[in-house]
Amino acid sequence: MADERLTDARLARVSASFDGQPFMRLLGASLTVLGYGRCRIALPWRADLTQQHGYVHAGVLGAIADTAAGYAVFTTLDDADTQLITVGFTFNFVAPARGDSMVADAEVLKSGRTLSVCRMLVYAVRQMQQTVIATGQQTLIRLPSAVRTP
Amino acid sequence: MADERLTDARLARVSASFDGQPFMRLLGASLTVLGYGRCRIALPWRADLTQQHGYVHAGVLGAIADTAAGYAVFTTLDDADTQLITVGFTFNFVAPARGDSMVADAEVLKSGRTLSVCRMLVYAVRQMQQTVIATGQQTLIRLPSAVRTP
Amino acid sequence: MADERLTDARLARVSASFDGQPFMRLLGASLTVLGYGRCRIALPWRADLTQQHGYVHAGVLGAIADTAAGYAVFTTLDDADTQLITVGFTFNFVAPARGDSMVADAEVLKSGRTLSVCRMLVYAVRQMQQTVIATGQQTLIRLPSAVRTP
Amino acid sequence: MADERLTDARLARVSASFDGQPFMRLLGASLTVLGYGRCRIALPWRADLTQQHGYVHAGVLGAIADTAAGYAVFTTLDDADTQLITVGFTFNFVAPARGDSMVADAEVLKSGRTLSVCRMLVYAVRQMQQTVIATGQQTLIRLPSAVRTP
Repeated sequence: MADERLTDARLARVSASFDGQPFMRLLGASLTVLGYGRCRIALPWRADLTQQHGYVHAGVLGAIADTAAGYAVFTTLDDADTQLITVGFTFNFVAPARGDSMVADAEVLKSGRTLSVCRMLVYAVRQMQQTVIATGQQTLIRLPSAVRTP
Repeated sequence: MADERLTDARLARVSASFDGQPFMRLLGASLTVLGYGRCRIALPWRADLTQQHGYVHAGVLGAIADTAAGYAVFTTLDDADTQLITVGFTFNFVAPARGDSMVADAEVLKSGRTLSVCRMLVYAVRQMQQTVIATGQQTLIRLPSAVRTP
Repeated sequence: MADERLTDARLARVSASFDGQPFMRLLGASLTVLGYGRCRIALPWRADLTQQHGYVHAGVLGAIADTAAGYAVFTTLDDADTQLITVGFTFNFVAPARGDSMVADAEVLKSGRTLSVCRMLVYAVRQMQQTVIATGQQTLIRLPSAVRTP
Repeated sequence: MADERLTDARLARVSASFDGQPFMRLLGASLTVLGYGRCRIALPWRADLTQQHGYVHAGVLGAIADTAAGYAVFTTLDDADTQLITVGFTFNFVAPARGDSMVADAEVLKSGRTLSVCRMLVYAVRQMQQTVIATGQQTLIRLPSAVRTP
């Protein structure tokens, strides 16, 4: 059953925003699951996303998890004009990023008037088996769009 | 004057390792300064590195700072066969990533037998003026190369 | 049903270790729940644990969560002689620490040969209602006891 | 030479605020240096501040560094009615907290209208020699005082 708090209009807005992120396109990431306060982003392994040992670069994992956190918070906002900016994030890595694809799951812990906090888990998927490779947490701040328009 | 602790052989090894990082090539990053316990990586602005607001994606900044931290520690190691793996990193962002190029500076705070810790600053450079946009710190672990060979 | 992986001997060892922590005594903290890879520590509000606004000091919350993480990992170890040292921790605060007591829950995400990672949640309890006030994550390293004996 | 940006009135306000922190008194901490955007807090070793191995508890180090960060930012504010609340902090530990006293130094990296960011270093002092034992970074948010009055 769909979560009624996540309207079609909001879903469409999130998709449009994600599709408008050049860096997510460069990585080949896609938004695969969206719920109220939740977002999952998947990324197929690609040779040009790796570091010198052949694993996906930690920065790539950080990038998809950061983006998942942003959209997870975005689903909880009423105001369509609000911008979300990352204030900070922390990742701890527990296993090498080795797999056919990487998946970042973000869940909102607190969606506040000014600050919001998410927790993230990043998985490697290998032959359909999923292993946790990193855990993260992130703070975001809401800004009126006008503030950040160049 | 060159730092005598950073031999030509080590410099060559770092360059070769950096050049062997597919993701750094994808981003267009280059290693611009290397010292004993210090590393700087620069990255020209490119439209496909941005998020939906036109600023360089936080994950890109994390990626170059993470990489700078790794090579900063690498310059302090005697054993050529050691691998360095990122255990965790934290970034706090203080200004939008707006500029002609981004620069990540890493400095080793502690280079240990097992764990090492770096502090990083990320700058945006605009018309030759440099502004701090993020501060980070990172822990890395040393592993004998053989452990991580697939 | 008790978790068979957590033997009585291990439970007794954890209790003895916790009771031997002078700083936990100073705070008035107590170990209230222990499971395999899990630990909860509770702390009644006390005026001398507060900062200038009357809330429990963020450092106190960090201290009980850090300690909970250590014992959560400790329950997963076979080797009684291993020491666990905190490598780093991160906390994000989402609500003021206002309540009759504070509770820190730690859960092991990865218990490794060298490094282990925990996630923590800190709650304020007020009239039996529990509210999340902070989320944390922590890395710990295992050392043979002999290494750290002064 | 005294920093003219730090008026006597502000110095007096910081001292009064610090003296009004019950938890700092419980720890035996004192504010030893204050500058514009800088604060140092010192803490003599005491047996009841230690963990089970006899070192000062990581939570104690976090507490004095968190407090130093708060006052470092406070020196940069014009508005006497502003409250500073810790949004999050991260610490990486690089050596055991062994010494006659512990010192936390905080330096403001950015003092913003809403958010401020500090970097901290914690030292152990032993026979007048100072060793870095932890590095931290912290985000704080400014709130009008009225918001947080219970």
